Amino acid sequence: MSPSEQDFDLIVIGGGSGGLAGAFRAASHGAKVAMLEPGALGGTCVNVGCVPKKAMWLAADLAEHLAAARGFGFELPESTPLSWEQLLLRRSCYIENIHAAYRKRLEAAGIVVIPERGSLSSEPGVVHAGTSSWRAPRILLATGGHPLKPDIPGVELGGVSDDFFALTAPPSRIAIVGGGYIGVELASVLQALGSRVSLFVRQSRLLAGFDQEITGKLAESFRQAGIDLHFDCEATALEGKPGAVEAITGDNTRHGPFDRVLFATGRGPNVDGLGLEEAGIVHNKRGQVEVDAWQATSRADVFAVGDVTAQPALTPVAIAAARRLMDRLYGGDTDSRLELPLVPTVVFAHPPIASIGLSEEAAREGHGDAVKVYRADFRPMLQALSDGHRRCLFKLVCVGDDERVIGLHLIGPGSDEILQGFAVAMRKGITRRDLHDTLAIHPTSAEELVLI
Amino acid sequence: MSPSEQDFDLIVIGGGSGGLAGAFRAASHGAKVAMLEPGALGGTCVNVGCVPKKAMWLAADLAEHLAAARGFGFELPESTPLSWEQLLLRRSCYIENIHAAYRKRLEAAGIVVIPERGSLSSEPGVVHAGTSSWRAPRILLATGGHPLKPDIPGVELGGVSDDFFALTAPPSRIAIVGGGYIGVELASVLQALGSRVSLFVRQSRLLAGFDQEITGKLAESFRQAGIDLHFDCEATALEGKPGAVEAITGDNTRHGPFDRVLFATGRGPNVDGLGLEEAGIVHNKRGQVEVDAWQATSRADVFAVGDVTAQPALTPVAIAAARRLMDRLYGGDTDSRLELPLVPTVVFAHPPIASIGLSEEAAREGHGDAVKVYRADFRPMLQALSDGHRRCLFKLVCVGDDERVIGLHLIGPGSDEILQGFAVAMRKGITRRDLHDTLAIHPTSAEELVLI
Repeated sequence: MSPSEQDFDLIVIGGGSGGLAGAFRAASHGAKVAMLEPGALGGTCVNVGCVPKKAMWLAADLAEHLAAARGFGFELPESTPLSWEQLLLRRSCYIENIHAAYRKRLEAAGIVVIPERGSLSSEPGVVHAGTSSWRAPRILLATGGHPLKPDIPGVELGGVSDDFFALTAPPSRIAIVGGGYIGVELASVLQALGSRVSLFVRQSRLLAGFDQEITGKLAESFRQAGIDLHFDCEATALEGKPGAVEAITGDNTRHGPFDRVLFATGRGPNVDGLGLEEAGIVHNKRGQVEVDAWQATSRADVFAVGDVTAQPALTPVAIAAARRLMDRLYGGDTDSRLELPLVPTVVFAHPPIASIGLSEEAAREGHGDAVKVYRADFRPMLQALSDGHRRCLFKLVCVGDDERVIGLHLIGPGSDEILQGFAVAMRKGITRRDLHDTLAIHPTSAEELVLI
Repeated sequence: MSPSEQDFDLIVIGGGSGGLAGAFRAASHGAKVAMLEPGALGGTCVNVGCVPKKAMWLAADLAEHLAAARGFGFELPESTPLSWEQLLLRRSCYIENIHAAYRKRLEAAGIVVIPERGSLSSEPGVVHAGTSSWRAPRILLATGGHPLKPDIPGVELGGVSDDFFALTAPPSRIAIVGGGYIGVELASVLQALGSRVSLFVRQSRLLAGFDQEITGKLAESFRQAGIDLHFDCEATALEGKPGAVEAITGDNTRHGPFDRVLFATGRGPNVDGLGLEEAGIVHNKRGQVEVDAWQATSRADVFAVGDVTAQPALTPVAIAAARRLMDRLYGGDTDSRLELPLVPTVVFAHPPIASIGLSEEAAREGHGDAVKVYRADFRPMLQALSDGHRRCLFKLVCVGDDERVIGLHLIGPGSDEILQGFAVAMRKGITRRDLHDTLAIHPTSAEELVLI
């Protein structure tokens, strides 16, 4: 029997975080699974997203620790240059280890990996891939997304986040276009690692949707770090040549020249060649596959998770959606589905931001005067002892007489690791009193949240 | 009217963390408060405990970050010596700032600070201090504790943790006696900052009471770091002279010579001259003032908090006890009292340990086969990318069919800041399912706890 005639219980199209999580979970429930992935396993997250991004963030974080070490009294030379060669080598090895671990787990789980791009057929239960066709009663779309570029003259002179990960040295002058979390993270890490960064933001603030006071602090930190910030400023054209690119903005100002320009102006779903139209799968104007609360598409045999849908473009969201779907389809847990009211998230900028629930603005819009906000604004001990300038601002957004906690917003060193436990607590429903009734761990930054 | 004739609502004896917290909280409810403290404000925690300890821990942590930075590709000299002079100057300034902040807050709160040692009188409501007497219907004992030395020959050749904070340079060879959290923290930080440390532990393990698997990992890390560990080994005598001290242990082995020997063999309450006997205050064999669940002593007008009692010797416990007591006495919150079932705690060793709830051993003793333990054992990304050897072990101790979480034990970088939020969640009562139902924050170390 050739593999094309083999019957599977599930075909997963896409080997990113969501697809892998779905395949593993389905297989753990005894399903026979095939996965179609022509490229690197792990998708955006592992290859051109979270993982290499965090590696670069850690490098920038170490640069900050070197400064703190000087302040503490460690004898260090004035200049401590970073070998990007070594860093990139380590980063590649780390990613290759993840690939190897995935391959091993896939093999152990008996999941058949087919290195082809899959596309849906008009016939339910059939997937075309290369010259073969595959059959399974259920199909999971998990093809992920990709960075988009704006439609402006000279756009080919600029790159996207994928190109950031291909850099082998910090550009001397770089323009980043976009003030969302990708733009913010790229700007922050490049400035910390030696580039001179200009950041062009169409809106009047960074990170629309995040708590405004927190993002205001981030903008302040960016300016202190020397990032050249332009708000209400849309890039309308690029001119020049590779290595010397000028950015023209809405008011006809000319900026640059820059060695590099990177667009962080949004992402779109990977649906090209997926056969959505032929298959009759409903998608929205941006091409994102529409799913209901059960990850079901408009066709009974097809499900979708992750960035190919309109759900929040976060790896843990894709993974959770896939796992819960498979627990429902193959694990007998009929109520299992992704719940999205409280999505904790971290922006790996310098300093990092961690956030869950409603921003102060959103809370006031929904609850008016019933909203109370508490703040802890402090200099963490490492900063104070090293004469560093970084502060932490932790905000608690509460509502009602019992001060139910509906938002938690942190900026400052340590925020990235502090939030997770509070996210567990928030899901259980907590009041400010619950925070006060928890004993503090002294001396930490995290304790400020139970003393607030 | 001389101050000695002045009437107060409350006299606080002792200006450490618990005394200060009680005084501030009582004053915030409108009470007229006097505080008797002949020494530095902030007690053990601020002056010879948590705060300077954390400063030294941060220095050792920076030394680890320097090693990681080398691994990442930062160009650093082989040796990056630490100027203890600069570090100690920064540490003193930091502590002096805390003192100044306390003085300011005390003045703002209208709390009268009397720089005298107070002692109880046999007459209720009266406190003697120097040549004066003071009156108040309520008295709070918050005199804290001090390090104890064992009763062995040559003990005067050894110091205690207070002497650690007086060091102006790392001793070349040092012996620490005691495997509790103070001994562990001193040994760890001194080894990291350049001393060669021998640690003598009477028991067969570090940190009795903590989860054994976790403390086993700590012992392993200590050995890797070069600490000379001796278990089941009691120091029975010191010999030699200052600067060249030998330690004799139970089996008549001679160790050393050491530049320094420090005892971390327990702490006792500060009750000398406090007049407990005259006042008829009941205390236990160790001299600790006995209090009930409401911080009440055997005399109706006298209450006690912190290390002068037998409650856990942790700053946040003393603070919480004092605040809740004052909320009850002056704030009208009749049910307000310290609850102690879930005390989160961090041992600032390298690597740090964070712990709440029952250890695996204690859980099995109480719940037998109903206990299930889950582990995440991983190398954090910073370590992996820098070829570092540090791993994290996060343990979840659950009980029953619904896998209620009754213990959480972490060792490894980041543990210190990760635990606090989970401590809030634990108080609400969580199951393993609650962890799984919380979206992960990727990529962090903390997320391992919701994916476990």
